[in-house]
Amino acid sequence: MALKKVGFLLFDTFETLDVFGPVEIFGRLKNLYELRFFSLKGGVIRNDHGVAVLSEPLDEILEGTDIFIIPGGYGTRIEVGNSELIDKIRIISDNSEFVHTICTGTALLARTGLLNNRRATSNKRAFEWVNTQGEAVLWQPKARWITDGKFYTSSGVSAGMDMTLAFIAAVHGQDLALEVASEIEYIWNSDAEIDPFFSA
Amino acid sequence: MALKKVGFLLFDTFETLDVFGPVEIFGRLKNLYELRFFSLKGGVIRNDHGVAVLSEPLDEILEGTDIFIIPGGYGTRIEVGNSELIDKIRIISDNSEFVHTICTGTALLARTGLLNNRRATSNKRAFEWVNTQGEAVLWQPKARWITDGKFYTSSGVSAGMDMTLAFIAAVHGQDLALEVASEIEYIWNSDAEIDPFFSA
Repeated sequence: MALKKVGFLLFDTFETLDVFGPVEIFGRLKNLYELRFFSLKGGVIRNDHGVAVLSEPLDEILEGTDIFIIPGGYGTRIEVGNSELIDKIRIISDNSEFVHTICTGTALLARTGLLNNRRATSNKRAFEWVNTQGEAVLWQPKARWITDGKFYTSSGVSAGMDMTLAFIAAVHGQDLALEVASEIEYIWNSDAEIDPFFSA
Repeated sequence: MALKKVGFLLFDTFETLDVFGPVEIFGRLKNLYELRFFSLKGGVIRNDHGVAVLSEPLDEILEGTDIFIIPGGYGTRIEVGNSELIDKIRIISDNSEFVHTICTGTALLARTGLLNNRRATSNKRAFEWVNTQGEAVLWQPKARWITDGKFYTSSGVSAGMDMTLAFIAAVHGQDLALEVASEIEYIWNSDAEIDPFFSA
């Protein structure tokens, strides 16, 4: 069986764990998934945790990928105004089988319009700002993550790992998700409605 | 106040989250910590999750660093036999204020002899193998993490995040650790004795 392709978007000051939490989970499933990293122009992408990662240009996957993953981070505050990037996110997301956003990565996807009239969530501490990036999105403040069709959107940073395991469970069954969680000794919050960081 | 320096060891097929979980936590505390990444020779280090990260040569920190962090991963099976690397890990660990190991990273530190007669733990699924790398180590099979003097050793992968938050709590107080956990929406297992992945 062909490996499913997982494409991660990177940009300057991306949030470290938004990317590498899901990488750890998909990366373990070597007989199912192949992981690649992309940025607008390709090359070395740095964040303010001192991380410098190699990436390929987004143009490599304009025809879409099996799973397209959009992280958050302070960089999203700038990138929501980067129309070239938002256009490419729209094209790739439209052409991909699944799109996952973590934390304020949801703001980037919301800017494309693809979340209009769909349910979505994001980081609790940036929720008001994220909401302004897509006024027709049906924002859900209390949720560890939200699934609406092919779109998976998560709350802040670590919630991306819970969502990724839930995606593995939905596609491959709960046993595989539990096996991966056990291999990486991760205490999985497997219930999307349990959101300890929501405050009314 | 001078920033404390956190140095992460990288080697081929390091475990993604062993590194980037702690990076997320230390990286958030920009007014306290500065993060750098090292490998035996420097340059691009790749793992089998498709990640390619830039690193500096370990020789840059032979005089030690404030916190030296050693991850696990399949690469440790090879690197325990790399005497040049083990010698440098010994020198740097000896000269550093704190040394943290995650998962099978403990095997690399055990090979240096610095854990002899000290309590330490590691990944549950590789525990028997790790034990053979330091027969004078006081191995603790049931623990989310173990602190012995300047050495912090953790169980598998995700346990490194719980340990890093515990380190922040020990050095800077519980409130700061809780604040970081909340910012990254991480459900922190703050009790080292709660080890859901131990089976007798």
